[in-house]
Amino acid sequence: MKKISPYYKHLFIALLSIIVVSAEANEVKSTPNNIKYPVGLKNWRVIATSYRTDNNTQRVILGNSIAVKAARNGSTNPWPKGSILAKLVWKNTDHPAWNSARIPGDFVHSEIMIKDASKYKSTGGWGYARWKGEQLQPYGKDASFPQECLACHSQVKKTDFVFTIPAKIL
Amino acid sequence: MKKISPYYKHLFIALLSIIVVSAEANEVKSTPNNIKYPVGLKNWRVIATSYRTDNNTQRVILGNSIAVKAARNGSTNPWPKGSILAKLVWKNTDHPAWNSARIPGDFVHSEIMIKDASKYKSTGGWGYARWKGEQLQPYGKDASFPQECLACHSQVKKTDFVFTIPAKIL
Repeated sequence: MKKISPYYKHLFIALLSIIVVSAEANEVKSTPNNIKYPVGLKNWRVIATSYRTDNNTQRVILGNSIAVKAARNGSTNPWPKGSILAKLVWKNTDHPAWNSARIPGDFVHSEIMIKDASKYKSTGGWGYARWKGEQLQPYGKDASFPQECLACHSQVKKTDFVFTIPAKIL
Repeated sequence: MKKISPYYKHLFIALLSIIVVSAEANEVKSTPNNIKYPVGLKNWRVIATSYRTDNNTQRVILGNSIAVKAARNGSTNPWPKGSILAKLVWKNTDHPAWNSARIPGDFVHSEIMIKDASKYKSTGGWGYARWKGEQLQPYGKDASFPQECLACHSQVKKTDFVFTIPAKIL
């Protein structure tokens, strides 16, 4: 086999690095309605928690700075433009050392709502997105999927289409 | 009635301001073991959530920067010196628009654990503190109250006395 020259070796390594870096940067794919996974979401502050008895899940609701400020000022009807709410949802699992405690198990999905009354006029002023499982696979077959979100969220139209009620954070 | 001179008026206002400012600064009293309510706790990042079926509560577990870094690196046995874990606990209440959802109601208490193996040697390397209710009243009659905390936390000695298992935060 012909020996590869050092020049090509270095070129190959450089190209590989670019591919790897690009892959990492694009790790989370945008949803069909072109919403990107928010940068730094995991470092956002808490707005509330909740759990559901029908599907055995629990969640934390985080917000970007605009949303957290609004939540803490009680200015959430309507939520201000630029607010992003994020729900991280887990399946419940039993705590191994405390019988009556239910703690986060498998990661179910991450969901966000972005407030922009003009951009998202057709869905009540909010852009909806969901990424499923630990792989954060974008949810929705095409850009019309948020109508499905709206079907539920319309029930809380009087609270600006938001289910989350900010908890007392002291 | 004798008229108060402007000098005394100003002095009075100045003294009143000092009292108000002091009261605000000392709003949350330290616990009997001299632990202060951490500054900026409400802005800390999330480590986990949980709820309990025995006492009808749910909670979020936050951490200071040292604790969050450790949680996300999986370096929590032992937790590093300076880690502070905080639990904000609420009574469950039903969501007004979603039958199967339980959301935070009344604020029950805020609890913290501070890791310092030498300072808190007598209680397994952790300093314990709790503040009850929205008024954040320090818990404990005297400095020996953390023995009560330790009685439960000893059950999880093999995980450095910590019940919290960091959730997958994506």
